[in-house]
Amino acid sequence: MAELRREPVTRLWVVITTDHPKGPSDYLHFKPPYQPQEGDGPCPFCPGNEGMTPQETFSLSREGKGWSVRVVPNKFPFFHIEGGFDRRPEGMYDVMEAIGAHEIVVESYEHHQNFATMESYQIERILFAYQERLVDLEKDSRFQQLLIIKNYPGVFNRHPHSHLMALPVIPRRIDEEIRGTLDYYQRKERCIFCDIIKEEISVKKRVILETVHFLVFSPFASRYPFETWIIPKAHSSDFHQITEDQMRDLSVAIQSLFTRFFKLLSDPPYSFTFHTSPIQNRFHRPEYHWHIETRLRIGLREGFEWGTGFFVNPTPPEDAAAYLRGVE
Amino acid sequence: MAELRREPVTRLWVVITTDHPKGPSDYLHFKPPYQPQEGDGPCPFCPGNEGMTPQETFSLSREGKGWSVRVVPNKFPFFHIEGGFDRRPEGMYDVMEAIGAHEIVVESYEHHQNFATMESYQIERILFAYQERLVDLEKDSRFQQLLIIKNYPGVFNRHPHSHLMALPVIPRRIDEEIRGTLDYYQRKERCIFCDIIKEEISVKKRVILETVHFLVFSPFASRYPFETWIIPKAHSSDFHQITEDQMRDLSVAIQSLFTRFFKLLSDPPYSFTFHTSPIQNRFHRPEYHWHIETRLRIGLREGFEWGTGFFVNPTPPEDAAAYLRGVE
Repeated sequence: MAELRREPVTRLWVVITTDHPKGPSDYLHFKPPYQPQEGDGPCPFCPGNEGMTPQETFSLSREGKGWSVRVVPNKFPFFHIEGGFDRRPEGMYDVMEAIGAHEIVVESYEHHQNFATMESYQIERILFAYQERLVDLEKDSRFQQLLIIKNYPGVFNRHPHSHLMALPVIPRRIDEEIRGTLDYYQRKERCIFCDIIKEEISVKKRVILETVHFLVFSPFASRYPFETWIIPKAHSSDFHQITEDQMRDLSVAIQSLFTRFFKLLSDPPYSFTFHTSPIQNRFHRPEYHWHIETRLRIGLREGFEWGTGFFVNPTPPEDAAAYLRGVE
Repeated sequence: MAELRREPVTRLWVVITTDHPKGPSDYLHFKPPYQPQEGDGPCPFCPGNEGMTPQETFSLSREGKGWSVRVVPNKFPFFHIEGGFDRRPEGMYDVMEAIGAHEIVVESYEHHQNFATMESYQIERILFAYQERLVDLEKDSRFQQLLIIKNYPGVFNRHPHSHLMALPVIPRRIDEEIRGTLDYYQRKERCIFCDIIKEEISVKKRVILETVHFLVFSPFASRYPFETWIIPKAHSSDFHQITEDQMRDLSVAIQSLFTRFFKLLSDPPYSFTFHTSPIQNRFHRPEYHWHIETRLRIGLREGFEWGTGFFVNPTPPEDAAAYLRGVE
């Protein structure tokens, strides 16, 4: 199990593993430069090895030829589904149980695939699986926030997969966004993301591509080289509300963007995350706008960013957008 | 030159390089896993090569045998000393010139040294150099915040060195701390860090070592495995105010801590940063308490932390402190 501890100065919640904690010897082979390593044994995410994972929570079939997307509880979750919403003091500090959900979306039955090599139809299936699981998880009243996160390549397994989580607290990044958007809304009675979309479409220079429903662009104050946001052009506070038509459109946008990354930067490692409204009031947030943020894991300046919360980006977003637009 | 752009939603300032920007080819060899690489040529920080750096801003001599610590402007600074405090709009966004200072503290005349192998007297000299430079830099009324940061090993040069910066804005991490400490002070009329020190000395289990003037401990909600804070036991809002006696004591604490890291985790990579009061009102901050935060660069979960601002730490701070206390 794990617990959530609150840092008393900045009030940040941190997950601390309390059983099976890691000691010094666990880190000796996990220092940079390290190559993410795959185990030697069979891949638990490949067809035929379904028995190696916990019972699936969702799957989509491939016209009678087995599954095409499969969702399973994570065997090594950050957050546990069992347990109560138990908050308690410890000395001057605050602690609660790290309840939540942590599932793995196995994105393909093929071990060697990624968003640049997949058909857009397969990406659409993944998006559909996300939506179905989120709709189910949000019924649990202990949860405040749903998250979708992907690391490519996976650290312990290269089989394409992403993480789906339900948390009992709102993460700092989302909370900061909510505060910022609320403040803007109070002053202007407009969604700040809607204004950003209008601005970017009008000045063009940071736009990478535009589809019927989505804008893909390099944000003005990109924290990372080639940071990219994918955002629905019409106001919508959470990903759940996406229609089938929009989902098809989004899968094309995702395929196009990741193909551009793949070609321009020679298959770079990346992470992406869906920023979507906290569960509470998700239907009544005129100020919040869901979107996907992507960061390539290249050229990071770890010490400075960690120490200060200050980001230095040597690639202006206007340049990044121009490079990505130019990929053929 | 570079500019500071403000992310409009969360109001985070980001440094964007505008001249000599990096394009895709600059990143092709800078993806993980990468080995920090030293240049093939002579080391600009070694004695005899002083001509390879800009004119020094400070140095300490080694009893007539050359310098022992040397401070020089960074040849590739994030922040530039020239320029005005020019803030302007760009469309709906905010921009300013990235003015500031960025100096390198060359910590030893020897190319292969670190805090575990140095004498504590050498660490004391480095602390003295930090203090002297900060006292000088804070005279510039354009600056709001002073920073000391070290990455070990250095990314482009292994010669022991740290970074010293003056910024025209307060970085997010410091700002969050200031807000948190002010809020606590308003409720209790006590410094929260002073309370944390009392709590930690009383429960003992997270204390790594204690000297006459400093406490070295694993914070309750450690974000990273073996995260460690070094804090003066008596209230003091900024590092400048440190006395000669305290500086000697701090150098012993630093040497002891980094020797423990070195032995326990087999010379791990790390970063540390000094958290000290913003320049304004630095003498009148009963609520703020300067300290040093250390992070080992082991076992990082990049995607999750980046995407959410949520940290998962598989090594409880009580375990970390026990391991570090036990190093002989």
